[in-house]
Amino acid sequence: MLTLDHVGIAVEDLETSISLYEDLLGQPPSHREIVESQKVEVAFFQTGATQIELIASTDPTSAIARFLERKGPGMHHMAYKVSSIEQAMQIMAEKGYELIDRTPRVGAQNKLICFLHPRSTQGVLIELCQHQKEIG
Amino acid sequence: MLTLDHVGIAVEDLETSISLYEDLLGQPPSHREIVESQKVEVAFFQTGATQIELIASTDPTSAIARFLERKGPGMHHMAYKVSSIEQAMQIMAEKGYELIDRTPRVGAQNKLICFLHPRSTQGVLIELCQHQKEIG
Repeated sequence: MLTLDHVGIAVEDLETSISLYEDLLGQPPSHREIVESQKVEVAFFQTGATQIELIASTDPTSAIARFLERKGPGMHHMAYKVSSIEQAMQIMAEKGYELIDRTPRVGAQNKLICFLHPRSTQGVLIELCQHQKEIG
Repeated sequence: MLTLDHVGIAVEDLETSISLYEDLLGQPPSHREIVESQKVEVAFFQTGATQIELIASTDPTSAIARFLERKGPGMHHMAYKVSSIEQAMQIMAEKGYELIDRTPRVGAQNKLICFLHPRSTQGVLIELCQHQKEIG
């Protein structure tokens, strides 16, 4: 059974949003990171087995900056944890879902990730992610 | 520490969306229900400790029908489990967050729920929910 690994939320300002989730969840972020390849800064909050990932753009050309321009801040994607990203990608492709990434790429927390296109998943940007050992 | 109870997803067609989540999660819905007061039909999938709630409108005047018209299908709200809904509402109101409901109302699965307005929560519709014994 796949579990929900995290929910990604696009935010305009990381510090303001961190304050909100500190108020709501009564705890500080468990992890912060700049993901250069995505041009974002992220903060994670643990809530049970699922994490909340706040995502702020560090560059106006990032995908998150374009999302914020088009839709404003809000829920961005849902990520499910898989044991093998390549096997999961193959299964979902065979079932007719559209993969955005042809090969897995490395996301925050050194996870291997792949996105399914929302036009094949009822409007929800779905990420598949495989945990690896974190670097550093 | 609050835990993420469920993520609500607004869908155009419940059966098509159930098929998608059956493909993704490898299991059927754990619960289905028509919530007359909200004019919706919902299906829940268990994924770890968090549920996915698919929400379809049963009436063109429902809040979900208006959401679908405005934004199309996609992520709708995030619900956090609280032990006392009234205490949680009071704390969030005192911290300056805007409650949509002045008193708790009864949602799917007989939960007591209250929504925080997205304009006070960085664009995310946040539900607080308190589990009660299910009826029937």
